[in-house]
Amino acid sequence: VHRVGEDDAMNANEETVRALGEFRLIGSVVPTFTDTTDVLVGSGDDAAQLVADGSVLVSTDLMVEGRHFRRDWSSAHDVGHKVAAANLADIAAMGGIATGLVVGLALPGDLPAVWVRDLAAGMAEELAEVGATVVGGDVTESDALVIAVTALGRVEGSPVLRSGARPGNLLALAGRIGWAAAGLAVLGRGFRSPRVVVEAHRRPQPPYAAGPRARAEGATSMTDVSDGLLSDLGHIARASGVAIDVDSAALEVAEPLQAVGAALGVEPVEFCLTGGDDHALVATFAEGAALPSGWTRIGTVGEGSEVTVDGAVHEGAGGHRHFG
Amino acid sequence: VHRVGEDDAMNANEETVRALGEFRLIGSVVPTFTDTTDVLVGSGDDAAQLVADGSVLVSTDLMVEGRHFRRDWSSAHDVGHKVAAANLADIAAMGGIATGLVVGLALPGDLPAVWVRDLAAGMAEELAEVGATVVGGDVTESDALVIAVTALGRVEGSPVLRSGARPGNLLALAGRIGWAAAGLAVLGRGFRSPRVVVEAHRRPQPPYAAGPRARAEGATSMTDVSDGLLSDLGHIARASGVAIDVDSAALEVAEPLQAVGAALGVEPVEFCLTGGDDHALVATFAEGAALPSGWTRIGTVGEGSEVTVDGAVHEGAGGHRHFG
Repeated sequence: VHRVGEDDAMNANEETVRALGEFRLIGSVVPTFTDTTDVLVGSGDDAAQLVADGSVLVSTDLMVEGRHFRRDWSSAHDVGHKVAAANLADIAAMGGIATGLVVGLALPGDLPAVWVRDLAAGMAEELAEVGATVVGGDVTESDALVIAVTALGRVEGSPVLRSGARPGNLLALAGRIGWAAAGLAVLGRGFRSPRVVVEAHRRPQPPYAAGPRARAEGATSMTDVSDGLLSDLGHIARASGVAIDVDSAALEVAEPLQAVGAALGVEPVEFCLTGGDDHALVATFAEGAALPSGWTRIGTVGEGSEVTVDGAVHEGAGGHRHFG
Repeated sequence: VHRVGEDDAMNANEETVRALGEFRLIGSVVPTFTDTTDVLVGSGDDAAQLVADGSVLVSTDLMVEGRHFRRDWSSAHDVGHKVAAANLADIAAMGGIATGLVVGLALPGDLPAVWVRDLAAGMAEELAEVGATVVGGDVTESDALVIAVTALGRVEGSPVLRSGARPGNLLALAGRIGWAAAGLAVLGRGFRSPRVVVEAHRRPQPPYAAGPRARAEGATSMTDVSDGLLSDLGHIARASGVAIDVDSAALEVAEPLQAVGAALGVEPVEFCLTGGDDHALVATFAEGAALPSGWTRIGTVGEGSEVTVDGAVHEGAGGHRHFG
């Protein structure tokens, strides 16, 4: 029996991006994003125009299927949250607030169009956390599924760079670390629980407001933890010409991480030291500074160039590597 | 016989991006781009910071190997020119001038690192035409070679949108059309000449300065010809709610296009009407307006919604399609 309603619903869900075509695909996604007061010209022209008073922050990230996400581990909604979060965190790590994103999508032609709409919905939800929106994009066919996101943002006064840490500064953390890595480890063994860490892998929760707050309170350097705490502290150490020592006792190894560590035979603090993708923020402050709310002291800055844990070079697995 | 010098040279040229690694690859490319006075914070931090006085223009484009370029038809240098030009033209089509680009590279691990350095050199040359530079990027491994470029730019006053064309306006063109398509047609048949059209496919020559000039002289709408003249005029017609008629006799069908048309059995004006990738600019102006230098009248705007050629709907192949 042919039932028109059913067929229509099925077609709507199974229609591929190739069948829909570039312009109808874009047309079906654009309404997901509502212009904010920062948007002077939104989607649909050769370029968008955003309010930018004096200067604009800009950061770009690529996510590739199979490398940064898997469609069997994360829903399109999750991936939308994740790609937006990675970019918003970069702007927060300068002490800024994101205003607008542009998104490039290289898509396999047989990808269901509904996957792209769900991706957009996830992005829109994450962007709503900071009051930003998508103002433009580009879509093309490709054998690999690649999502290229560029975030624009504003900052009051000067941004907080990686190069401002000084010996004697204290090291502080805002947000969770190790959770996404524990979730990835669990998924990699074929499990789906503890659910909280799997969710952390799928949808990071960067402490966006902690970035501008750290800037306002005089943070001397800052970055987000995307590759792993030790790896990203290495960026600050190199840019600032300093040594950084992490006090492992100051790192909160939450109960779910301990559970995953016990189950997988991994020292759970390793997730915190080397696991990426939570997009926590790390910053340095002058010695004796009162830390802004949401920030916890986790170490010290000294003379030298190495990143150490409890005074010793860490012998762990190291951070995420993008090649090899 | 083992000759050290030879081996070193060979290794330098054959080293893959995977062997070099993300950070050394980025380190080898960043010096290609020199900060301009618009750059407050350049490459190497979580985000870059550019001067933006009141507002910022932003546009993004993806190019995928095999779809937008072929490595056997274009050198890395050529591709660098081409990806930069496509983005700079989008900013020019708003009446603006590009200030900075961010670049996302999804690269096969076995891609020679020298290809990426040559790509950067080509981009830098193209950017020098407008005084812009690359201020940041991201690199990751991928099965497909995808280049994601986002351009930021400034505009004096209000940008020129696609939506401002009015019945009675005249239609004008700046720059070449049809050349890149003729070059692509030649390459597709296995030929490499006429060299001028092959070069036009490899390195478009958008008339960057004509964009701000058109804005200053009161252009009512504008876009760049990336998909094909008729296809891109369709964007203006839809956004403005007007009809547009192209006067085919006003299109210059240059001698090399006539030669290619004769050799391939194609009406050469077809290249001009439907061929993309030259990134010429088309704009509308009030009737009777004196056109700025570099602009030629090629048609008229009327009541309605169709794009026609000499008063009739065109029966040609249509513009470039991104899927299918």
